[in-house]
Amino acid sequence: MFNYVCPIDDYRFLLADTLRFDREMEDLGREVDADLAVAVLEEAGRMCAERLHPLNRHGDEEGSRLIDGEVVTPSGFADAWRAFAEAGWASLSADPAYGGQGLPFILQLWLDEMLSAANLSFGLFPGLTRGACEAIMAHASDDLKATYLPRMVSGEWTGAMALTESGAGTDLALLKTKAVPAADGSYAVTGQKIFISSGDHDFGGNIVHLVLARLPDAPPGVKGISLFLVPKYLPGAQGNFTVRNGMSVGALEKKMGIHAQPTCVMNYDSATGWLVGKAHRGLAAMFTMMNAERLMVGIQGLGIAGAAYQQAAAYAKDRLQGRSADGGRAPVPIIEHADVRRMLLNIRAFVEGGRALAGWTALQLDRAHHHPDAAERAKADALVALLTPVVKAAFTDLGFESAVQAQQVFGGHGYIREWGMEQYVRDARIAQIYEGTNGVQAMDLVGRKLPLGGGSVVNGFFDLIQADLADHGAVPVAARTAEALDRLRQVTARLQGASVDAAGAAAVDYLRLFALVSMGWMWTRMAVAAGGEDDLHRAKRVVADYYADRVLPQSEGLATAILAGEQAMMALPAEAF
Amino acid sequence: MFNYVCPIDDYRFLLADTLRFDREMEDLGREVDADLAVAVLEEAGRMCAERLHPLNRHGDEEGSRLIDGEVVTPSGFADAWRAFAEAGWASLSADPAYGGQGLPFILQLWLDEMLSAANLSFGLFPGLTRGACEAIMAHASDDLKATYLPRMVSGEWTGAMALTESGAGTDLALLKTKAVPAADGSYAVTGQKIFISSGDHDFGGNIVHLVLARLPDAPPGVKGISLFLVPKYLPGAQGNFTVRNGMSVGALEKKMGIHAQPTCVMNYDSATGWLVGKAHRGLAAMFTMMNAERLMVGIQGLGIAGAAYQQAAAYAKDRLQGRSADGGRAPVPIIEHADVRRMLLNIRAFVEGGRALAGWTALQLDRAHHHPDAAERAKADALVALLTPVVKAAFTDLGFESAVQAQQVFGGHGYIREWGMEQYVRDARIAQIYEGTNGVQAMDLVGRKLPLGGGSVVNGFFDLIQADLADHGAVPVAARTAEALDRLRQVTARLQGASVDAAGAAAVDYLRLFALVSMGWMWTRMAVAAGGEDDLHRAKRVVADYYADRVLPQSEGLATAILAGEQAMMALPAEAF
Repeated sequence: MFNYVCPIDDYRFLLADTLRFDREMEDLGREVDADLAVAVLEEAGRMCAERLHPLNRHGDEEGSRLIDGEVVTPSGFADAWRAFAEAGWASLSADPAYGGQGLPFILQLWLDEMLSAANLSFGLFPGLTRGACEAIMAHASDDLKATYLPRMVSGEWTGAMALTESGAGTDLALLKTKAVPAADGSYAVTGQKIFISSGDHDFGGNIVHLVLARLPDAPPGVKGISLFLVPKYLPGAQGNFTVRNGMSVGALEKKMGIHAQPTCVMNYDSATGWLVGKAHRGLAAMFTMMNAERLMVGIQGLGIAGAAYQQAAAYAKDRLQGRSADGGRAPVPIIEHADVRRMLLNIRAFVEGGRALAGWTALQLDRAHHHPDAAERAKADALVALLTPVVKAAFTDLGFESAVQAQQVFGGHGYIREWGMEQYVRDARIAQIYEGTNGVQAMDLVGRKLPLGGGSVVNGFFDLIQADLADHGAVPVAARTAEALDRLRQVTARLQGASVDAAGAAAVDYLRLFALVSMGWMWTRMAVAAGGEDDLHRAKRVVADYYADRVLPQSEGLATAILAGEQAMMALPAEAF
Repeated sequence: MFNYVCPIDDYRFLLADTLRFDREMEDLGREVDADLAVAVLEEAGRMCAERLHPLNRHGDEEGSRLIDGEVVTPSGFADAWRAFAEAGWASLSADPAYGGQGLPFILQLWLDEMLSAANLSFGLFPGLTRGACEAIMAHASDDLKATYLPRMVSGEWTGAMALTESGAGTDLALLKTKAVPAADGSYAVTGQKIFISSGDHDFGGNIVHLVLARLPDAPPGVKGISLFLVPKYLPGAQGNFTVRNGMSVGALEKKMGIHAQPTCVMNYDSATGWLVGKAHRGLAAMFTMMNAERLMVGIQGLGIAGAAYQQAAAYAKDRLQGRSADGGRAPVPIIEHADVRRMLLNIRAFVEGGRALAGWTALQLDRAHHHPDAAERAKADALVALLTPVVKAAFTDLGFESAVQAQQVFGGHGYIREWGMEQYVRDARIAQIYEGTNGVQAMDLVGRKLPLGGGSVVNGFFDLIQADLADHGAVPVAARTAEALDRLRQVTARLQGASVDAAGAAAVDYLRLFALVSMGWMWTRMAVAAGGEDDLHRAKRVVADYYADRVLPQSEGLATAILAGEQAMMALPAEAF
């Protein structure tokens, strides 16, 4: 296994030219510039490369274990967590009111990229903690905020999200966990949850679960779900958190990957909890967590793809097999073979295009929070809502496909554990499933996001792309992206007001088409910004051409398939499957 | 986990109508008809479902282990192997001259499908034994044939292929294992081989390795490689095979999947072997094995896809989540949701189209061996050569993609081990890599198979498809396939005489396009044959429409990407990756 290298040159390039970071920050009145951002990212990259990446394969082999009812994480994880928190990485983008550093979200997202690249199982701990913090910040009482947020923001304590039950996954209307009010204003929570990432660990400190449950008087369905804060340790008489709450780990899930991550079956047995937000309004509070998480999960796909690319590119330059194309030299590094380049360029076209798009989306999130003009805030917020399912689903699908292609570069050596490539594939797979499967994301895009503002949000986004493409017509990728955008507009018009079945039949192909166009837009911006003759600029122009020539053509078949409609998909009776 | 069900109705349908089995057998003067074939397949299906499928997940969990230098397979495997051999399944299609039953190859290929569906790790034992038998039959001396073939054909002994070395995978020119002639006509073979499937086991009986090595006077490169038969047990003074040869298992490979399969690092230390075929002509002998194996490996992708489909379809009919499209019922079986149907239909369109195409190819192999007319034999042989890389690569790529989609149907339950879906993904992955990576298959198609007969073989195949499509213009899939065939012809013309880089840049996309058209042709035949009003015929017509509407459009982007050429792929210097 080769070292992980922080993609700092690409971050610097994106901040300076493609994303115009300094101007964006000025607009928001924030005192952060690209130089500071690069310095932070460089330091984060060092931590990921030196501290977390070396634990990744070993973490997979050792795994988290359940011993006498307590989770034991792989050796090195607890120390790494403490070092991570002490260096301030847990609080990077958090609200200064609770001890956070309040740095722009783009730095958070790119830190998440590097965390996922270096060690996805580890990266889930801070990721879920941040999601839990956001829900508490947005919906909990001031008491709960004051008690829990500072220690969660600092990383002394961690968070977990307890939503899924064995019979209630995508469909939370079916969940059965109960919460009964007690005289002191707390609740007794009882039920079993499954697939709970970071549900328990041995890092020390409290573990704050946000649990979806039903009150006794709850109406049926999703309108009867409430959210509760249920800590592993309750405050004792001295105010220190030493009293074990009525919750325990029933088992660790045996999973395909992310073995180091303790994914728990959690049993709550009259566990004490406090309501977060209003009764029966838990779903809204949960979506505060989920939306933040979904962007982060998309970035997990990007991170693993980037790490897998680095490994595969290094291997391809090192491994000697076969003859040069002119027949004159043998053996040659396999990087000389066109098909090996194809696999690497597919990954790279996604990683760099995706990294730019993630950065752009993160800047919109900063605008949504900090822009002085309320209309600008609302506009940015709507764009983030539009792009969240795209980033989550397309990036995790492409992340998995990238890991598979990087593994393929290694041939048989990719299938054995030694090189770590098969771990990338196993780890990347989960991101397509959790936080709402990618099918659910696609339905969210088509069913909820296209109708936003009566279609004005999506059309506004397309107009923005089109204006940029018109400005930059000189680069080849602009023309190809414009063609693909035409196709996307055509199918978008068809899907406005489509039936549930028609939307469902189109959704996954539509989301992919949407992502292809969005990344084509970013490749256009990058190709234009890369006008110089240094290696990075030259490479950007070549990969932009590759994206235009070899990736964007997929838009043709996707559009045709979508326009074919749902008829053949819905014609078979269920029993004929 | 649900039971595995033999797809006997589909086999019956394909034999009767789509593939005109009885007429084909008559042409070959063989006394086998569809009724007998169905009876054999039904019995094979019972064995796979009742005996091998129940060992599949347990085999993955327990794995093969190396204890004191000896391989111990998962409990139940050795008994299952003996039952398999005693029932005659090992000898199904083998030459009656050595005790085989000489049944048509199409039955062998569909048996392989069911073996792979039920238990891929197990299925590799008979598969590799058959490959070794074919090389011995075609190239070994009469003495070696008489000594080894009867017991290998019966399944008393097994076979293994020892080609790869740590520095020599795709590029066998680099292999270093040595063979030194001894006075008695045997050779002393010394070297280390890796990735040796079925290299050792505890089934009892001999294990016959076919080992590639260099003679002392060998020229460098692939023209200096010879093939040797190296048995685990040598004949003793009494003629019984009790003397351990100088070979041992250095380690078991730790793999992503097929854990029950003992994939060995083999050390040969002056092991006694005998030359198979001529000195320095080992590559030709090896390709006799490889071609047979490559069709079988393609079928492995098909088998796993079919098994994963059955599991996912059963789960989708059982699992209740979400609301009906009209909003009226909740929860409903997820099979009602369009996106779940999309995933299932993608798999089914491949499985049934691929099963038909595999059957057609197998019938060509029977023609190549048994047709009374030499010209017909040569024509069929060329078609098999053309289609072998297509079946190997496209079916294993689609097999893996199918396993991933079937896993996705299970949501989070697909990621945990319990349901067995993640095992399908891990197991299916190897088939894209071994017996020549799918990139190598694609280069074989473009670089070696398109030029066969100066292009007349591939054009003859296209003419055959075109004539069939013209006869069946009434079904929608015929018209869509004809459009895709036009695209395929156009890019084929472009690739005739292309440079190595241009061929390599196009190869993988080209092979997928070729497979899409070939399966479209089979879907056309099936749609026409399915004119009745029974459930099977109705479903065939719907899935044919699905293939036309939602799968064939991929041909558009593939053709565009291929025609874009290799420029962007070759422009980056190696160090820029």
